[in-house]
Formats: sequence, C-alpha cells, structure tokens
Amino acid sequence: MVANLRIMPLGGLGEVGKNMMSIEYGRNILVVDAGIMFPESDMLGIDYIIPDWRYLRDKKDLVRAIAITHGHQDHIGALPHFLEEFDVPVYATRLTQGLIEVKLEQKHMLERTTLHTYASGDVITVGPFTIEPYHVCHSIPDTVGLGITTPAGLIVHSGDFKFDHTPVDGWPTDYAKLAEFSGRGVLLLLSDSTNADQPGKTLSEAVLDDVFHQIMREAPGRLIVATFASLISRIQQVVDAAARHDRKIAIAGRSMVENTKMARKLGYLDIPDGLLVSLGEIKNLPPREVVIMATGAQGEPMAVLNRLATGRHHSLRIREGDTVVLSSHTIPGNEEMIHGVINHLFQRGADVYYDPVAQVHVSGHASQEEQKMLINILRPRFFVPIHGELRHLKQHGKIARELGVPEENIAVVENGYTLTFDDGRLEVGKRVPGGYVFVDGALVGEIGPRVMRERDALGQNGFVTAIVRYERRTGRPVGQPRIITRGFIFTPEAEELLSRAEDIIRSAASVEPGTAPSEVEEQVEQALSHFLYRETRREPVVTSAVVEG
Amino acid sequence: MVANLRIMPLGGLGEVGKNMMSIEYGRNILVVDAGIMFPESDMLGIDYIIPDWRYLRDKKDLVRAIAITHGHQDHIGALPHFLEEFDVPVYATRLTQGLIEVKLEQKHMLERTTLHTYASGDVITVGPFTIEPYHVCHSIPDTVGLGITTPAGLIVHSGDFKFDHTPVDGWPTDYAKLAEFSGRGVLLLLSDSTNADQPGKTLSEAVLDDVFHQIMREAPGRLIVATFASLISRIQQVVDAAARHDRKIAIAGRSMVENTKMARKLGYLDIPDGLLVSLGEIKNLPPREVVIMATGAQGEPMAVLNRLATGRHHSLRIREGDTVVLSSHTIPGNEEMIHGVINHLFQRGADVYYDPVAQVHVSGHASQEEQKMLINILRPRFFVPIHGELRHLKQHGKIARELGVPEENIAVVENGYTLTFDDGRLEVGKRVPGGYVFVDGALVGEIGPRVMRERDALGQNGFVTAIVRYERRTGRPVGQPRIITRGFIFTPEAEELLSRAEDIIRSAASVEPGTAPSEVEEQVEQALSHFLYRETRREPVVTSAVVEG
Repeated sequence: MVANLRIMPLGGLGEVGKNMMSIEYGRNILVVDAGIMFPESDMLGIDYIIPDWRYLRDKKDLVRAIAITHGHQDHIGALPHFLEEFDVPVYATRLTQGLIEVKLEQKHMLERTTLHTYASGDVITVGPFTIEPYHVCHSIPDTVGLGITTPAGLIVHSGDFKFDHTPVDGWPTDYAKLAEFSGRGVLLLLSDSTNADQPGKTLSEAVLDDVFHQIMREAPGRLIVATFASLISRIQQVVDAAARHDRKIAIAGRSMVENTKMARKLGYLDIPDGLLVSLGEIKNLPPREVVIMATGAQGEPMAVLNRLATGRHHSLRIREGDTVVLSSHTIPGNEEMIHGVINHLFQRGADVYYDPVAQVHVSGHASQEEQKMLINILRPRFFVPIHGELRHLKQHGKIARELGVPEENIAVVENGYTLTFDDGRLEVGKRVPGGYVFVDGALVGEIGPRVMRERDALGQNGFVTAIVRYERRTGRPVGQPRIITRGFIFTPEAEELLSRAEDIIRSAASVEPGTAPSEVEEQVEQALSHFLYRETRREPVVTSAVVEG
Repeated sequence: MVANLRIMPLGGLGEVGKNMMSIEYGRNILVVDAGIMFPESDMLGIDYIIPDWRYLRDKKDLVRAIAITHGHQDHIGALPHFLEEFDVPVYATRLTQGLIEVKLEQKHMLERTTLHTYASGDVITVGPFTIEPYHVCHSIPDTVGLGITTPAGLIVHSGDFKFDHTPVDGWPTDYAKLAEFSGRGVLLLLSDSTNADQPGKTLSEAVLDDVFHQIMREAPGRLIVATFASLISRIQQVVDAAARHDRKIAIAGRSMVENTKMARKLGYLDIPDGLLVSLGEIKNLPPREVVIMATGAQGEPMAVLNRLATGRHHSLRIREGDTVVLSSHTIPGNEEMIHGVINHLFQRGADVYYDPVAQVHVSGHASQEEQKMLINILRPRFFVPIHGELRHLKQHGKIARELGVPEENIAVVENGYTLTFDDGRLEVGKRVPGGYVFVDGALVGEIGPRVMRERDALGQNGFVTAIVRYERRTGRPVGQPRIITRGFIFTPEAEELLSRAEDIIRSAASVEPGTAPSEVEEQVEQALSHFLYRETRREPVVTSAVVEG
C-alpha cells in the first residue's frame, strides 16, 4: 500500500472555535491546535466544549506531535485534556508557550509535558513532516501560520491571520515566506474563513490609535477600557495613548494581570516603569489621570466589566464622569449580555463607547480581499477553508472558485470528514462519527444529548414530583400525597392548584388491588401531567415516587 | 389644583419592545400603543412579556381611549390583555385595525371591543385631547405618528418612523403636517430611538428592488424569500420582482397567508391574479419559475424557514439549486438561531443570501440624520427619547442636546418614571414600581423572579430528589432510598455515583430517635448536595421527601 496524505478536521469546521486538525501521512500524525468552543446559549450549564478526537484514539501510536499556531483559547484551550490522553511534544512560539505554561501549571501538568519553542523562520522535522512556522498578524502577538512539507507535497495552514501593514508590534505577516512557499508549489491551502462574509479588507490596528487618542483627550474623568485578556497589542495601544496623555494605567482582572506580567517579562509588552499603578493607588490620583484596563468586554458575568456594571466589584465603583470603552468584537450569542452591561453602565452615569457608536475595535481576521490575496500568492492546487461556520466555509469556497481553483479541488466540509490526497486527486471520504464533548465541572463527555434535552425541558417549565405512599394489598394511597416543585409556578394561587393536584394524585393512585407500584407511578404521572397542562397550558417535567407500605 | 400634563412610559423605554405610553391631563388618560416584548434568552420558558400597567389600575376611570400607531407586535401584541382590564375604545388606521381584528377574533374578544378607524389627516377629540394621526414611513404600511394637542400644549409622538423618499407604496412621511405642527409650536417631542447608534440615514426600501432583481435573474432554481409576516411592503417588492422575471409566487406560513389575504382585501397589497399559486401547484412548475415567500427569518423554531432548514416542513424540501434570501433585521438575541438556520440550509445544498453577504434588508427606523431632521423640523421645547434600550435613549438625548435642546428640557428615563410638565418646567418624578409581566401559557404575571431563578438553576445542572422512608421512633431509614434525577448526569458511570449517593442518604437519615422528618430532610439535602459537589464540582437542585412510617 502506497502511503497517502490524509487530513481530518477534528474541530473548527462548521462551527466557531475548538480548532483542531489532524494531518496524517502513512503511520504518522501531526496535530495542529487543540482549542475549546464556548457553549451556545441553549447548551445549558456547559462550561465549554472540546473537540471529539475519538478518531485519534485508535491511532494513539501514530501521533507524533502537536503544533500550535497561537495562544487564543479556541486554539490552546483543550490542550490539557488532549495531553492527558496523548503523551506527545507540543510546539509553540515563545508567547504562546508562556500562555500554555500558565494553563498546564494550573492543572499540575507542566512537569510531565514536553514543550518545544519554535519561532518564525525555524525548520523542524517531526517524522515525515517538515514544519516551517511563519509570522502572521493576528490579535495576539507571536502568531504563526505553518508550512508543512509532507512526502505528498507542501501544505500551508494559515492559522488565524490578517494582512495588517501597520500592526502595533511593527511586525507584518511574512510575505516573503509565502512567496517562497508559492515558488516551491503548494499542494494544499487550509485558510481561515472567520470573516469570509466580510467584503473588503480588515482595518489595521493602527486606526485605533487616533480613536484612543481622541477619547483620552475628551474623557473628563477616569477611562476604563475593556478588552480580551489575551489582546496584548490592544493593551499596548492603550498604554501608548495613556503615556501620551499623562494618564497612569491600572490593570483589573486576574487573567489580564497575569498575561500582562508574562508578556512584559517576555518582551511582548512595553510599559514604562512608573506608568503602571495598582488599583489601590488610583484613588490618590485625579480622575483625569487614570486609565483602567479591564476584562469582561463580552459581558461575562464574573469578569470586571460586568461587576462594575452591576456594582459588584470589590474596590471600584462606576460614577458620573467615568468613560467606558468596549474594545472587542462581540462573540455571536453574547449580544444580549453585552447590551445589558452597556445599559447598566449608562444607568450608573458613565459615558460608554462601543461599536457602532465609535470605531473602538478592529477584527484580527482577514476579510475577503485578504483571503483572495493569500490564495493568489500561494496558488494552491487544493483548497480547504477552515475556521468558521458552514456559511463562512461556503463563502470562502466560492471565493477560491472565483479565483480559479477548480471546483473538484475544493472541499467544503464539516468536522469529521476524511480528505485523502491520492494520486493528485482529492477524495472526500465518509464522516467519522463525532459530536460535542461537553465539559461541565469535573465531568468531561458525560453530559450527553439526553441530559441536555432534560435541562432544556426543566429550564422551560420546571418540575413537579409527586410522592405518595401506597398499599399494594388494597390498591389504595395511604395518607396525603406530597408534591415537590421548582421552576413551575409560585404564587398564592398556586396553592389552590397544587391542592387540587393532590386530589388528582390520590385518585390516580386508587387502583386494582395488587397493582405494582411502577404501574401506579405511570398512572400518577399521566394524570398529573394532563391536569397541569389543562389548567396552565404548560408542561413541567412530571415524575413520581410511589412508596409501598 | 391646576391640572398638569403628565406622561408616564409604561413600556418601550430602556428596553426593546412592549411599547406603551400614558398621557395624562387632569382626570383624563390617553394611552398610546400596547405592545409585547419577546423574551431574552435567559428568560426560560416565557412566551412573551407585556407592559406593567399597574399605574393605570388605580386610575381605571380616567382612561379614555387607546390610540395605536401601527400593526407590529411590539405595538399591538398586548392589546387583548389590556382590553381585558380596560374597557375603552381603540383607535387605529385601517390596516392596523385589520391586524387587531385578527388578534381579537382569536381570543373571542372582537364582539365586545369598540374599534374606531382613523386615518392620516383626521382630527379626533378624546376628552381634553385632540389627536391628529399623520402618515410616516415604516416597515409596515399605514403607520402613523400622532399629534396630540392638550390644554398644556402640543405633543408629537413619532411612532416608529423613517424618512424614506422612495417608499414601496409611494407614500412618503407627511412633512407638511410636521411643518404645520412646528408652526403651531411643539411642547414635547417623543421620538423613536431604535437606531440612535446608527450614523447617517437609513437606506430607502427602493434599494432592495435592484437586489431582488439581480437575485431573481441569477437564481438557477426556486427562490425562497423569508421575512416578517407583517412586512407587507417587502412582500410587494418580491411580488413585483417575481412578475418581472415571470416567476409565480406561493406563500408559506399561516400568519403570512392571513396577512397577505387581509392586505390584498384592504388594498395594501397589489398581486395580479394568476401570479399567486398554492404550495401544491409549485410542484408542476419549472423551478426557475417559482418564488416562495416564507415566515421565519428570525430562525423561530416553528416557522417555515426553520422547518425547511431542518427537514420538518410538511410539503417542501430544500434541495440543490434552491436559493434562500433572509430579508429581515436580526432581533438581538436571535443571532445564534439565525446562523444555525443558515448553516443548515447550506448543508442541504441551498445557496443563501443574508446580511452582510448581500444588501437584502433595510431598517424601518430612522438613523441619526433622520432623527436630527425630525427634531429640527419640529423644534420642540421638550424632548423625550422613546423606543429603545437605555444606550439608544442616551444617544438620542445627546443628539437633541447637540441640536440645541437645553439639557434641562430633555428627559432620558426608563419605564415607570413620571414626567410632569408644570409651569413650563419638566419635572422627573419618582419611579412607580413595576417590572416584567411574563406570559407563559395560560399564566399571566404568575411567574415571578423566584421561579425564573429556579428555572435557571434547573437548566444549568438539573435536579436530584431523594425519597426515603423513615421511622421516627428509631431515627432510622427503612429500606433502600430512592433517587429521581433529570438533567444532571446520565452515563453508565452515573449508576455507581448514584448508588454511593444512596449510602450517603441512608447515613444522613440515621439520626437521634424522635427527630422530626423535616429536620431529617434538611440533613439529607445537605449531605447529598455536599457529596455531589465533591464528586462532580456541580450543584444540581437537591430536594428530598422523608416519608414517615
């Protein structure tokens, strides 16, 4: 059997987040990224979702390494779970490695993990794969795309990227390396589709400098800027603007404090000594000389901005004269929460800047014109759009077709499809079964669709449980039934309803002598459901316990 | 006591939807609109929310009439609930009245309601109020704003409006009437804030003609256009484009069928005979000659588009070659659902057009430049922004200030504040208590915050109920405890966990002889909660029933 090249998306295709890709040649697998996905609003009680890597479980011995493109959660968040199952070396750039170390340290896994640092321009050999990380601009420094040379040809994995000609760190995407790849001939391009429905070009981070400058000048008092804790370049921009306007800067939020400390130590963040003050110190400064960088621009309930909006922060209070800037993209599904936070901040007297009121954020992902540019620089033979919902992948596939990639050389697929490159042809194989692996507290993968459906039903209408003692010999209930209910109804009127429900239970538990309790339970539940629906037009989850004796 | 003018927002201020305003002079109250609000995603199980009109309940005798601006749900949806409490005449334009009649008929309330038709240009007297409805453009025909002359001065209530110079029905906003109001002198402007964070001017409906023209020309097969059932002018545009491209049109979705029928009868929709076909007839037509208008552009689970996306429609199946257009604004909070529908449509092989991929929708509300225009035409002495979240109202207040309305003559308030106009001064009074009135099945207002909190907890982690027989005399459990659980955990491993939980229950129910069952319940619940948290790091709702004997 001649060895084939096979790729298998384990995450990130047909959805937002938990990006992960398996690249397989012969008896060797290289994995790229291991991210998490944040739960959608109908995934009740779920902390986050990790990729379903059951495909790799049968091939444990073949996995040689995992290469990471950058340090965002949707690319590194599942790494601890992955490394629990797969004892392989991790390759990452210096900043990304710093973020991974923090994560592994928390899980007490740092000691037993092999971490290799790579940098843009390096050439690393892993089994039959030669990996060449190259620098790309994204909303976190030290992001790379990967050139992966295999015996079947060169794969380029774009990572998350944009073509920013004036990035904050002055380090544009490595176009020379892309041109070099192109010269060698690119078999397959895997390219970031996140913004495939956005026409034009994504704005440069540099446009924000003017906006922050203007806001700092006009804000009559304290300025609070909320963004992602990992948006190191945004923190740098705010620091630069603060220095220019003689404002001191304080950091609020554990993850941002930690990231700032680490990024300063590694040289990715330049904050002059004396500019940084503690939250405690700002009380002694005139409001006009204060900037606070905070977490929580997604409205997360436990992050700093939400605490400020709802008056739950341990040391800060929003007051008249404060100006708040939400400098981040809204993750779909978070709109309501973010709008709620904005409204609460206004209620407390702050002035609030947010998109679309002001241009206070730019995306870290390529728009259509940049996606086209990447395809045209590389002229790949095959094209597979990655990172995005199906609608983004479809749009990105269209773009590649418009640029001349033949239809049969483009595969728009979701997670779990095997793509085999055999004899110069791309074959889309059958889908390997897979699904969401939910993480909920200490439970990983133990929450299935059935439990999710039950949670949905409970959230909609609550539950009613009937408890009744029953004598099998006579087929009669003993004493008064009891009802336990939560989330269904609670008013004075409900008492009357529930006391009528008890009568229903009693009479449903009056049966042929000798009837088994399980059968009585069925009758009680049926009668009770029917009664409650008739009275309220609603369907709580109804259960019962018929206790014999 | 000299009579004062007092207005009281009962809905629509500080939130989206359930618009309602009370205008009070002496012992007379005129109510404007009675809308519903759709539940946010954390309001589990709620059908919709109606305004809290407890303020009016103490003044039942003073309410003279309710005047309606237009037929959207957020302006008429709560009318049946309102009319159950207040037996007053309803004033509405002809099309709006048609929509109200359908609603009242369904609730068997039509017979006992007094409905008056008014039209743009009419002058109606209700107690001390002279009402002058005037035509405005909005995304439903026959929309009006209201001039309301009171003994204290002229109030202009903008309704929902935009300044469209090329509306589909050829009937622009009545600028002459606005100029006339201005000539008379406007005391107070209440103006639509929905798009107050959108710079510039809202596009005219006319821009969509070209888009629909192009899509109809290029779509290789059937075209399915989803929009709101009440967007009569959008239906007209699709009809016109279909006629031009020799396509027949079928309507899918009960509410759209009913609205189309009614709007045709009343002359608000012009569909040539022969162009309209039934869903059954399209099977006999070449796909290129078919347009289907459908409900469900918000992704609503029971509407046509979602059924098509998930293969649940009784007669239609999406197939390769179909083109789907989502021609509507995304109501915040619906993003995930809509994106899910789009992805499913792509999965089934359709091509899908949606904002931002194509300009297939324009807003029905004024953007900042139109809001400025209205203020500058009317030059009101006082300004109160209405219809919007607090962030929109704040923004609109800023706009009025920029145009020269004095700060002290602008009131940016949320629902429930009393605004009194006394002696040429605006006074913001204290807030009348109020809140969300939830409608859930047959229950109106009986679902309070406590039940909502319980639903949230149940949705997050499910419940575990312990049932144990207990003998008070010995202080010992009898037999084996039982556990009922839903939404918590469900795997083979769970059995082992639950059987250990039974041991915990037994030992918690082993107490001092003579202990009361209620006390035993408390101990069981505490021990069980503690055990489950330790084992799973999660907190299901734990309840128990200790059955004596």
